[in-house]
Amino acid sequence: MPMSAIAILGGTGQQGRGLAQRFAYAGARVIVGSRDPQRARETVAAWAGAAGSTVEAAGPPIEVADNIAAVEQLEQGDLTVLAVPFTTVDTLLTELHSHFRDGSIVIDVTVPVTFSGGQMAMLEVAEGSASEHIRARLPQGVQLAAAFKTIPAALLSAGRQPLECDEFVCGDSAEARRQAAALVELLPGARPVDVGALSRARFIEHLTALAIAVNRTHKIHDARFRVVGLR
Amino acid sequence: MPMSAIAILGGTGQQGRGLAQRFAYAGARVIVGSRDPQRARETVAAWAGAAGSTVEAAGPPIEVADNIAAVEQLEQGDLTVLAVPFTTVDTLLTELHSHFRDGSIVIDVTVPVTFSGGQMAMLEVAEGSASEHIRARLPQGVQLAAAFKTIPAALLSAGRQPLECDEFVCGDSAEARRQAAALVELLPGARPVDVGALSRARFIEHLTALAIAVNRTHKIHDARFRVVGLR
Repeated sequence: MPMSAIAILGGTGQQGRGLAQRFAYAGARVIVGSRDPQRARETVAAWAGAAGSTVEAAGPPIEVADNIAAVEQLEQGDLTVLAVPFTTVDTLLTELHSHFRDGSIVIDVTVPVTFSGGQMAMLEVAEGSASEHIRARLPQGVQLAAAFKTIPAALLSAGRQPLECDEFVCGDSAEARRQAAALVELLPGARPVDVGALSRARFIEHLTALAIAVNRTHKIHDARFRVVGLR
Repeated sequence: MPMSAIAILGGTGQQGRGLAQRFAYAGARVIVGSRDPQRARETVAAWAGAAGSTVEAAGPPIEVADNIAAVEQLEQGDLTVLAVPFTTVDTLLTELHSHFRDGSIVIDVTVPVTFSGGQMAMLEVAEGSASEHIRARLPQGVQLAAAFKTIPAALLSAGRQPLECDEFVCGDSAEARRQAAALVELLPGARPVDVGALSRARFIEHLTALAIAVNRTHKIHDARFRVVGLR
């Protein structure tokens, strides 16, 4: 069975890069979407070399396209991952609005956290969470799930090291949640934990802030979580 | 070294009961504070029998007092645990305001979560979190830390079963956080994780909501968390 293609918009950021590489290692067709495909192509070409010894094998080549072209070449069953900074989603979603295939599935990995003057803060989001904000800006026919919001970006982009963590999934349809969970399962050592409706994204996004607080208090970089008492 | 006395206000609720019993098992002097000490005395007397086989030994007797008397009999180095429902803290803190010893330490375990019509919701708290709301209503000379906000109440009150989880601690002074962490360490299998300033309580309180979402989605009762990547 051929695996879905995965378009990662904002795929050259640290989190996007980690997801792109890990999905490629798992054998998926990955298309990195970018505002500037020429620069993105150079960035992606530099990954294998820059990562050094942590990347033992390159995996299948990662494609690059502008954001609209990345979304337009997806077929039924393919997935779009939204990995741009939260502050840029409005512009991106306006641009993409008419280009999403009806029935397509979007996975939101954004978190409304900012760093200003060395302080971490959560942005006030009128809809309650980044995911609900994004839901309000997607075409009705597109299904949305949240995932990978608490994954430590540095560890994610450090080659193939097992992640050893749970990743929380929520969404506005069972199918979107199922697809998001399947993406989590592509990453060695990551377990998807379904928490239900999309409105629960606010709890997951606060957990990202808690992970950052743990990192800062204890001078570590990869705080992440396991649920105890499940299964 | 004699252990601090611990006054648990709202100590007859499920979470208060679990903490009272577990601190008593650990050898601490525990005073359950209540609005209605007569009824509380009956409740506390019934605990050992009601818990059945999960409670192998009673531990030292748990004392009962009205809330003001519980706080007034504390000495330097003793602790007050605030385990009343969040919706009742304003009344309680107004009542107690002039009775706190200067320099005393309060541990807040409340969470601004409500259940209405079977739906879980977080209350909007103007200060950002229950802990900051409480901070604004305590005398200046009292130090405040948050702890035990994500501890599963059912497991907590099930005798001496090890908890196998991390409990997040934050607070407005290093000493309050240290004392809160020491309380966590009284519970077998619980590890305190300091996350810094009291303003981080909002992240911890959302984690409680996430635990409830996990419980409801997976029809379990004791979802809790371990941090991976720490130590």
